[in-house]
Amino acid sequence: MAIIVQKYGGSSVADADRIKNVAGRIGRTQERGDQVVAVVSAMGDTTDHLIELAHKISAAPAPREMDLLLSTGELVSCALVAMALQQGGRPAVSLSGGQAGIRTDAAHTRARISGLDPGRIHRELDQGNIVIVAGFQGVTDGADVTTLGRGASDLTAVALAIGLKAQRCEIYTDVEGIYTADPRLVPQARKLKEIGFEEMLELANYGAKMQPRSIELAAAYNMPVLVCSSFVEAPGTLIHGGTAMENRNKVAGVAADRNVAKITVLGVPDRPGIAASLFEPLAKVGVSVDTIVQNSSVERLTDLTFTVTRTDAKRALEVVEPVAKSIGAKGCVSAQDLAKVSVVGTGMQNAPGYAAAMFRALYEAGINIEMITTSEIRITCIVNEAKVPEAVRALHTAFQLDKE
Amino acid sequence: MAIIVQKYGGSSVADADRIKNVAGRIGRTQERGDQVVAVVSAMGDTTDHLIELAHKISAAPAPREMDLLLSTGELVSCALVAMALQQGGRPAVSLSGGQAGIRTDAAHTRARISGLDPGRIHRELDQGNIVIVAGFQGVTDGADVTTLGRGASDLTAVALAIGLKAQRCEIYTDVEGIYTADPRLVPQARKLKEIGFEEMLELANYGAKMQPRSIELAAAYNMPVLVCSSFVEAPGTLIHGGTAMENRNKVAGVAADRNVAKITVLGVPDRPGIAASLFEPLAKVGVSVDTIVQNSSVERLTDLTFTVTRTDAKRALEVVEPVAKSIGAKGCVSAQDLAKVSVVGTGMQNAPGYAAAMFRALYEAGINIEMITTSEIRITCIVNEAKVPEAVRALHTAFQLDKE
Repeated sequence: MAIIVQKYGGSSVADADRIKNVAGRIGRTQERGDQVVAVVSAMGDTTDHLIELAHKISAAPAPREMDLLLSTGELVSCALVAMALQQGGRPAVSLSGGQAGIRTDAAHTRARISGLDPGRIHRELDQGNIVIVAGFQGVTDGADVTTLGRGASDLTAVALAIGLKAQRCEIYTDVEGIYTADPRLVPQARKLKEIGFEEMLELANYGAKMQPRSIELAAAYNMPVLVCSSFVEAPGTLIHGGTAMENRNKVAGVAADRNVAKITVLGVPDRPGIAASLFEPLAKVGVSVDTIVQNSSVERLTDLTFTVTRTDAKRALEVVEPVAKSIGAKGCVSAQDLAKVSVVGTGMQNAPGYAAAMFRALYEAGINIEMITTSEIRITCIVNEAKVPEAVRALHTAFQLDKE
Repeated sequence: MAIIVQKYGGSSVADADRIKNVAGRIGRTQERGDQVVAVVSAMGDTTDHLIELAHKISAAPAPREMDLLLSTGELVSCALVAMALQQGGRPAVSLSGGQAGIRTDAAHTRARISGLDPGRIHRELDQGNIVIVAGFQGVTDGADVTTLGRGASDLTAVALAIGLKAQRCEIYTDVEGIYTADPRLVPQARKLKEIGFEEMLELANYGAKMQPRSIELAAAYNMPVLVCSSFVEAPGTLIHGGTAMENRNKVAGVAADRNVAKITVLGVPDRPGIAASLFEPLAKVGVSVDTIVQNSSVERLTDLTFTVTRTDAKRALEVVEPVAKSIGAKGCVSAQDLAKVSVVGTGMQNAPGYAAAMFRALYEAGINIEMITTSEIRITCIVNEAKVPEAVRALHTAFQLDKE
């Protein structure tokens, strides 16, 4: 008898009917003879509503209190899913992150899992129970509730799958799997049967739907992850570390991320230590800087441009402007209306020509490239947000993803 | 430095503005130089909404899952109150029932407090924190969340006050204190400065606003309880066990409870063991029977009438009807539209004439008495629900509660 860990996202448990549907699906998995642990997210927009409520009370709510508040969303859905299973005659038990044995550090609102004590889950499974676990949360050694960051129910599921030595981790969501591109943008986009961890990580970081930390974790322990729909019965996409990859020799997919803002520090004196003096204060306030480009120019002055998420843009500018002044830069400008489009594929490693093909495809579609950044298996261009649909379609065709 | 335990009910924390108001009140208590522990209920109708949600999923949700679900309401409000205090510059910490050290038995949805480990609360208080505790909940020795029954945030507050050796327990609510009668029914009703535990217990059981178990507990440990308004600044009513009671020699108040249904088993053979055979099955399904009246008649047949809450009426009838048949009774009839009106006062002990005065007052108001039940310090008449306002007013006047 194998253990299967499943995860159901917020849209899959958004109301009573969907919860019953999820319970049916969990039940059918058990009928196939496996032990089932299901991780659930908060119902629909619950987390957003709780955040809104907190901000009505405090401009900067304490992270510890925020965690206690937000953790309730997942407790509600996990109790309800267990009830739905019991109503269908299936023994089930709902567990909070803490009860499920998920220990974390005390970095509230973005805690890291420090350990897993699977004793309680094993006991419940051995008694014939289906175990429903509240995602996104754990407890510190001091018994305080923590949350693991937005979208971290995926992480809970992968961590439990690893800790329980599950056969695989199944992520149920509102899409049918991982596509060669967003099907809303590219009608010809195809669902992938399988994809490698590394490729998935690049896709997830650049717009596809799965929390990147959970993919890193799955990759580290080689835990296969199946992404599939909780609404329709259809084979999903298996993310794994195997070698028989269908996309071994080509681009796996095209990703887009619209949450991009750009800040340019103009006329930076080109001397050592300048970059550190700009980026250290940003790190201190927790702003993640993504692409950084430095344009050399005459007179030992350069323009230094970097991207951040739009949510962080205002804070980043507040931090950078005084620093720019103090180092004698000419000023700062920012732009909000940017996006990243990326092509991803292990096939690009050590194979020349992919970047050139990408730039040509965008050029022929009349799209201006603002910045470029690459990894071993990814090429990303930063373009105007309005151009995203055209860019993704052009790349999907250029890299022959339209056909099987 | 004394410890004060306060409790704020659901209407006191129903929205962000009220939560800020509660935080202000808690803060002012601390400013007076005391350590403050505040117990909060779920916001407004949260608990009802959660129950509704559960019933959309399951006709009979498992009590264990129900507890995990319902406990979230208090977690939300306790996190928000702590945030509001912090926003006002006051160090505060929010604790779940389990974190606050409230241990219970495993009787889910109606757990009893089995012990209190006040270590964490003392540590937080000693660090200068105001401690906000989620009411109505605790944990079992197996770390499962339990709830203590409807209205049990009062019980949480009293138990913490006792366990922390607090100076007193303050219950903040949407009324200004305990009145000689419901002011909505009796305009002349007066707020009592003080009342004895026993009298309060009878009033609470018969309609006044405080959870009876919490009064029993306060009485057992002689913990003074102040009931007052969370909306207006006004002296409340002190419930205590002292002897200098203003109402020593008279009726303290008139209470009414509209949640009464009556079931009559007709033509019961009058032989030993019959009562047990009727009431044991009711106890088994958890139906609490209140007043029981047996009318003897000729032919060794009696009519046996008892009252239950309206919520339990349907279930009680389902249990009693087959039993009635099996013991050869003639049938069952039930009525939903009943209410209890009670006069309460330690002054009634060993003093004749109160019952007669009550019956006369109701008679003169043209109100028919359906059943009568008494305790040492209470006389209760069951009357038609529609007659409650007239009955309460008539009794308030008859026992001279209109005047100071």
